[in-house]
Amino acid sequence: MKRKSFQSMQCPVARTLERVGEWWSILILRDAMFGLTKFDQFRDSLGISPNILSSRLKHLVANGFLERKVDSGSPIRVDYVLSPKGRAFQPVLLYLHAFGSEHFAPEGRAVVVVNRKTGKPADVQIVDRKIGRGVTWPEYGLAPGPVASERMKAKLAAAEEILNRKRRAS
Amino acid sequence: MKRKSFQSMQCPVARTLERVGEWWSILILRDAMFGLTKFDQFRDSLGISPNILSSRLKHLVANGFLERKVDSGSPIRVDYVLSPKGRAFQPVLLYLHAFGSEHFAPEGRAVVVVNRKTGKPADVQIVDRKIGRGVTWPEYGLAPGPVASERMKAKLAAAEEILNRKRRAS
Repeated sequence: MKRKSFQSMQCPVARTLERVGEWWSILILRDAMFGLTKFDQFRDSLGISPNILSSRLKHLVANGFLERKVDSGSPIRVDYVLSPKGRAFQPVLLYLHAFGSEHFAPEGRAVVVVNRKTGKPADVQIVDRKIGRGVTWPEYGLAPGPVASERMKAKLAAAEEILNRKRRAS
Repeated sequence: MKRKSFQSMQCPVARTLERVGEWWSILILRDAMFGLTKFDQFRDSLGISPNILSSRLKHLVANGFLERKVDSGSPIRVDYVLSPKGRAFQPVLLYLHAFGSEHFAPEGRAVVVVNRKTGKPADVQIVDRKIGRGVTWPEYGLAPGPVASERMKAKLAAAEEILNRKRRAS
């Protein structure tokens, strides 16, 4: 499916999506979190065609989610390991596990997120650590940052206006 | 790009990705969070072709993220609004804003997540509310749930084994 590049968009969601690439990339990052590092391991785990896997790995390396490590022995060994940015993305993957288990597993949970030390299932939530509250809309919202373009400011102002109109109406 | 369906996979990440669809769908959900409800509003905001937008909206309705509300006046008005499941996905969108602003905005932040009551920027983190700790790997991991298939159990066991090997090696 053809789509325009999100690169030029100032929206940080669009930028993140552009960098991660698409679903295969997220599943590759999931497998990398699980400790897989080799081309063949990713291929076998995902049942993905080699040329797509190759292009996705290149994309993730180019965008700094994975690091490509070459051990020049014989045979040459190549490992793909999570970079600091890739590791920073791990909580999202764990959250998606929790979300999917809650919303898309009518037959029951196949996977649970657990604290390794206690072995207890986690209550995975997205919160504002400053005040310990769940980050939900519209209690939380978006405001223009220092480099917001006029277009971005207008978009955020329009969202606030819609919200205020709804509040006045209710 | 052709890819196999994730529907049959037991992994909750794969299932969530399958349901959300692809990047356009996430940007549609973002705009729905901002309060857009009309086909034309989404089209203008995203610069997306009408046929792709139409298929993405159908997909999001079919999978329960959006509800299609028809007001049979003249002209007929159709609104797409977030369902409870769609609202449950909002924290992910806010997290992606925070993540993208931190990692993919070298020129500075165009958008910040704020608490609407205080107006202060949020420190958006994914935590285990039971004990208030950040949900990071490998402090947190995945364990088989009640309905885990043998394949899923083997996959999770392999991930634990890799982790234990790394620990012994370091």
